[in-house]
Amino acid sequence: MAPPSPNALQGSFDVDYVIRYRFADTDPSEAAQQLERLLRALTEVGLQTEVRHGDETSLLVFVRAAKRRLAKAIHRSRVRDWLYGVRNQEPDASSVTDPQTEAERLRVIFQLITFPKEEGGADITPKHGEWENVEAIFALHDDETNRKWMRDWSQKTLLTKDDLDQIRNKFGEKVGFYFAFLQSYFKFLVFPAAFGFSCWLLLGHFSVIYTVGNCLSCLVFVEYWKRQETDLSIRWQTKGVSALLTKRREFKAEKVITDEVTGEKKYIFPATKRLSRQLLQVPFALLAVTALGAIIATCFAIEIFISEIYNGPLKTYLVFIPTILLSALVPTISALLVNVATRLNDLENYETQESYDVALTRKIFVLNFIVSYLPIILTAFVYVPFAGLIVPYLDVFKLTVRPFVSKDEVHAVTEFQINPDRLRKQVIYFTVTAQIVNFAMETIVPYAKRKLFLKYKEFSDERKNGSSNGEGQEQKSTAAFDDPPEEAEFLVRVRRQAELSEYTVTDDLREMCIQFGYLALFSPVWPLVPVSFLINNWVELRGDFFKICKECRRPTPERTDTIGPWLDTLGLLSWLGSITSSALVYMFNGSGPEGTPSRIQFWALLLTIFFSEHLYLLVRAVIAAVVAKVETPSIRQEKAEMYTLRRKYLQSAIDAEKEGVTGEDVEEPVLQGGEEKITRESLEEDARASTLRDSTASDRFWGRQRGWQESVKVGAGIIEAQATKPDVKKQQ
Amino acid sequence: MAPPSPNALQGSFDVDYVIRYRFADTDPSEAAQQLERLLRALTEVGLQTEVRHGDETSLLVFVRAAKRRLAKAIHRSRVRDWLYGVRNQEPDASSVTDPQTEAERLRVIFQLITFPKEEGGADITPKHGEWENVEAIFALHDDETNRKWMRDWSQKTLLTKDDLDQIRNKFGEKVGFYFAFLQSYFKFLVFPAAFGFSCWLLLGHFSVIYTVGNCLSCLVFVEYWKRQETDLSIRWQTKGVSALLTKRREFKAEKVITDEVTGEKKYIFPATKRLSRQLLQVPFALLAVTALGAIIATCFAIEIFISEIYNGPLKTYLVFIPTILLSALVPTISALLVNVATRLNDLENYETQESYDVALTRKIFVLNFIVSYLPIILTAFVYVPFAGLIVPYLDVFKLTVRPFVSKDEVHAVTEFQINPDRLRKQVIYFTVTAQIVNFAMETIVPYAKRKLFLKYKEFSDERKNGSSNGEGQEQKSTAAFDDPPEEAEFLVRVRRQAELSEYTVTDDLREMCIQFGYLALFSPVWPLVPVSFLINNWVELRGDFFKICKECRRPTPERTDTIGPWLDTLGLLSWLGSITSSALVYMFNGSGPEGTPSRIQFWALLLTIFFSEHLYLLVRAVIAAVVAKVETPSIRQEKAEMYTLRRKYLQSAIDAEKEGVTGEDVEEPVLQGGEEKITRESLEEDARASTLRDSTASDRFWGRQRGWQESVKVGAGIIEAQATKPDVKKQQ
Repeated sequence: MAPPSPNALQGSFDVDYVIRYRFADTDPSEAAQQLERLLRALTEVGLQTEVRHGDETSLLVFVRAAKRRLAKAIHRSRVRDWLYGVRNQEPDASSVTDPQTEAERLRVIFQLITFPKEEGGADITPKHGEWENVEAIFALHDDETNRKWMRDWSQKTLLTKDDLDQIRNKFGEKVGFYFAFLQSYFKFLVFPAAFGFSCWLLLGHFSVIYTVGNCLSCLVFVEYWKRQETDLSIRWQTKGVSALLTKRREFKAEKVITDEVTGEKKYIFPATKRLSRQLLQVPFALLAVTALGAIIATCFAIEIFISEIYNGPLKTYLVFIPTILLSALVPTISALLVNVATRLNDLENYETQESYDVALTRKIFVLNFIVSYLPIILTAFVYVPFAGLIVPYLDVFKLTVRPFVSKDEVHAVTEFQINPDRLRKQVIYFTVTAQIVNFAMETIVPYAKRKLFLKYKEFSDERKNGSSNGEGQEQKSTAAFDDPPEEAEFLVRVRRQAELSEYTVTDDLREMCIQFGYLALFSPVWPLVPVSFLINNWVELRGDFFKICKECRRPTPERTDTIGPWLDTLGLLSWLGSITSSALVYMFNGSGPEGTPSRIQFWALLLTIFFSEHLYLLVRAVIAAVVAKVETPSIRQEKAEMYTLRRKYLQSAIDAEKEGVTGEDVEEPVLQGGEEKITRESLEEDARASTLRDSTASDRFWGRQRGWQESVKVGAGIIEAQATKPDVKKQQ
Repeated sequence: MAPPSPNALQGSFDVDYVIRYRFADTDPSEAAQQLERLLRALTEVGLQTEVRHGDETSLLVFVRAAKRRLAKAIHRSRVRDWLYGVRNQEPDASSVTDPQTEAERLRVIFQLITFPKEEGGADITPKHGEWENVEAIFALHDDETNRKWMRDWSQKTLLTKDDLDQIRNKFGEKVGFYFAFLQSYFKFLVFPAAFGFSCWLLLGHFSVIYTVGNCLSCLVFVEYWKRQETDLSIRWQTKGVSALLTKRREFKAEKVITDEVTGEKKYIFPATKRLSRQLLQVPFALLAVTALGAIIATCFAIEIFISEIYNGPLKTYLVFIPTILLSALVPTISALLVNVATRLNDLENYETQESYDVALTRKIFVLNFIVSYLPIILTAFVYVPFAGLIVPYLDVFKLTVRPFVSKDEVHAVTEFQINPDRLRKQVIYFTVTAQIVNFAMETIVPYAKRKLFLKYKEFSDERKNGSSNGEGQEQKSTAAFDDPPEEAEFLVRVRRQAELSEYTVTDDLREMCIQFGYLALFSPVWPLVPVSFLINNWVELRGDFFKICKECRRPTPERTDTIGPWLDTLGLLSWLGSITSSALVYMFNGSGPEGTPSRIQFWALLLTIFFSEHLYLLVRAVIAAVVAKVETPSIRQEKAEMYTLRRKYLQSAIDAEKEGVTGEDVEEPVLQGGEEKITRESLEEDARASTLRDSTASDRFWGRQRGWQESVKVGAGIIEAQATKPDVKKQQ
């Protein structure tokens, strides 16, 4: 938790944020006025500004925070945290507050820029409303550190706790949580990989032992990660931060209510109205399942027809038709559906960014689920058991190809044999080939594309400058816009970063969850799945870091105490895994490579699923209870802190009490009474005497024995009397 | 939330607690010494004492708290609450703290008596260790109020919110929660009762519509009650109180560790060791299932044999044999098993009272589950589908009776016909007859027994006094022990209360949960089940209150924010209901009174269960999400309070900031810059000039534009220049 080294920022001229202001589509004088408003707003919240050339249609506004104002903003942010229970102790107002990490500094400055005025911000909302022209607000990459980390990590197997803390300090908790998850997932994979490899060697596919081991380890991982999240959120001081919600600017309130008690203005959108809009998700989900399902099923049918029934000319080429169809159609339809999902989500009009994100994540997960798992589900649970029934209907295709091929070239349907290898091949495709392709598409291709694009731009700029030579302006592409030479290199770097896309950690998390799904749902088909994932994820972690550093703008640090809705997704997938795995094992175990699915008894299959699922739920309850008992170092530390805090307060409360004892009120019983001799008779006399005085019944009752020592004597008298009574003696 | 009226206690001479001290088994002088220690300890914590005769072998120590000391104890308790997050705001130390309710007063005094010395208590532990002879510590009933409430409630259908608040003020939150639950449950039952009655009239038994409606309403009730718990815990200021754990005196630590950081002494019992002991629950559960299952199954078989196969002499009397056997054996074995369960629980050595209770509750619930539901499960899922297979084996009984009866008097097994009415009769027995019997056993019988016992005691006392007349002591049984006449009536009342048993709210809650189980699991068999429960629970609520007031000592107020493990039980029963209901409906729907269970397809049954269960889980997730959105009045109020608190703090933070603005540090950007004319050229000159000065690169970068107005001008210049460039124009 060392403060950020000042040298790290030196190469960036101490710039905190760069604001890209695009003026292309605006009238010049209006653009200048808006720029003035922008700079004035920034200055008002205590930010220093410098303006430089961006590209032909944009300016770059450099922003730096004044030290004292920043300290105050940080203090305010911490007070807010304390009020919402994120911090245990009230922050000290007297001392000057330094940012604890670079991420905190950047987060608070970002809040200074974007928060509404009443919360002490400049109310700049990129790409929205008044600030439509503010295209992006981004911090600059610390290239030197990034390069160093990439070098370091490529040489070690596991990131240390310290590495994760460093990531968090640079990029914020959200990115930190992603890498921590990736790291935990990678570590966890070691067990199924080793176990799977042994099972693959010794037991082959569809082994019951492997399936049980795999289900159990998936389950343990999910529960373990929940614990890990608690630990991390305590270590990074973000526990409970999800209570701090960010209002969405796009939220449209139906009415505004002023709370009578607090005077708070509440923007209301009726929950029932939202619920009725949310119900649109049902037809949407049906549509998505139908659309994607139809494409996948059709391509699947064509593939079976061509590869297993058709025997005519060009077969070697025709086999690729379904793959090509799939690759062309699925992404298109998916993109369309994602678009629809986003609109639906906008329509649902969520009040906070957090609930908006969760809702969108859920919708997109449904789409991903279909695209990723439906092909395998079709093969396992439709093709294998029902192929004999369905294949005759593939005659449709035979009719299509009849004009072109002779009758002999199509297998008679009766000859049809189920290809039991298909399932395994498909699983291998999705867990090895697709992972590699995915990685390439995500990391290598954009990098290459960008390099090519830069080359092309350089080339076209040169040609343009060549053609517009007549204007007398002679510029080099690297030192365009007459930059001062000492800043030229820096500005080139900034301009390049401004061109990059934004990094969204959600996409990377989704990818990992989908991957986890293959493991949980289908890995009994091919026990080497975890081995493949283990290797893939070592590369993935580094690749993702490379992507953040090189292909995306530096992400604005955000805080979180969880991986959010993906945690539920992991749990759900692991649960579904208990159903599919047991079904797969029942259906294929012992059936050998020939595949005799006719042996499948439907009731036995259902019974297997029933037992497996309920066993899973039972074990999950037990493991959750056990894991809840585990105390990680951070949890222990927090408990110790809370203990110290409480003891301090309670001690002072007790001390204060002791001091006050001297001046007691009259009712207070006295420990040292007078030593006068008291007999039973004198007591009763007292009591009788007191009836004469003007007192309440209660006073007389409590006045009967004066002080505790009298009570003791009376009590001893009673005990003595009873002990000497002969009948009681007898009873004893 | 009015303070307790002082008059309410007047009839009890302002007594807060009565301690019953038994000296029968102790040497008189030792007993007197211990009494002295007891009174000294009580006096030290600020409690006033008075000693009176109990019965022949016990003393009554009356205790009253001194006002100032009580206020301090209450303050301390509130500080503790605040530190554990039960209260939102730190209690004010300066003002004198009055108890908010009678329950708070009694709870704090009880803590003063029982808490360990280091927490400011007198460390009196009834029936444990040094204080073995302290038999009970109890407060006195407020008879007048109790009578008034009983009268009031017998005339109204529903208790109001205010009634519940009153119960809580008198008896504490734990009892309050029980009555609130009973009330919610009663209100909820109105819907299934009305719905069930209509379905019974229109659709008969095993209606699909009723089953769906019933499952859904059970589900909604459980989720609704969760919300209700939150609301109540806010209203009664106990939210989060379960974090305050009570150490068990019986806990045996294996080692003591001193925390290095905090210096806290930690008493450790290894979790692994406890886990290994907890594993003993598995054989225990098996044993319980076997033992109870065997008895129930055997009696069941005998009953079938006698009622449906046997046709010999004495049949009318013999039919009662299984019932008698069941009634004799089940409670005996149950009691034995509860005993074993308690020992197991002791062995598991829990550190806190709360975890001990939860573990014991779970174990006892398993036993209750078997006794309550197994008979019906056997009928529905073993007798009906498999009777044809099993009945031939009942030949065993035929062999037994053969010596006594002729062959004709036993039906031939082939003639055997399943009795489809049996299931319904059984359900009616458990949901009507058993409920009434239970109520009688619980409320009326103990009352009658106690009355009889008192009569007997009076009679035997008289006889005894008659025989020991020679000693010259002439006492009336009502005014024994020469009590002062003004206290006599009161002391008789106290002595009677001292004889009563302790009230445990857990037993009453368990009864309700088991009842809910019949509704969730089996009500499709007979849709009038909820009607019966509705009527029963109206009486139950009043009966339980009568029990608390008349048959139990006043319960010591305890705090809670939940009905604890029973909440999980309700959820579990509702879930199981989705399985059994669907199975019952599939098996019996349309089969008519003749019952043709041979039509049952096992796979279809399993498929029905599978769909029904997963539909249930899906709907539960949706309903939980919807219910979580509902804001009850208390939740809204708490939010408003938190909002006010936060706004106050944040406003003061922002105000402090504004005051500080005047004395800014040098880095702070200035909003009103000098008005000197700046051209681009002059800026560049400035920059060049600054390179000559001794300054860092960063200083030069940020010094290029002096103040934000310069930045605006430079920016406007760039915009202007780009706008006039012909090629950009073209691009637009």
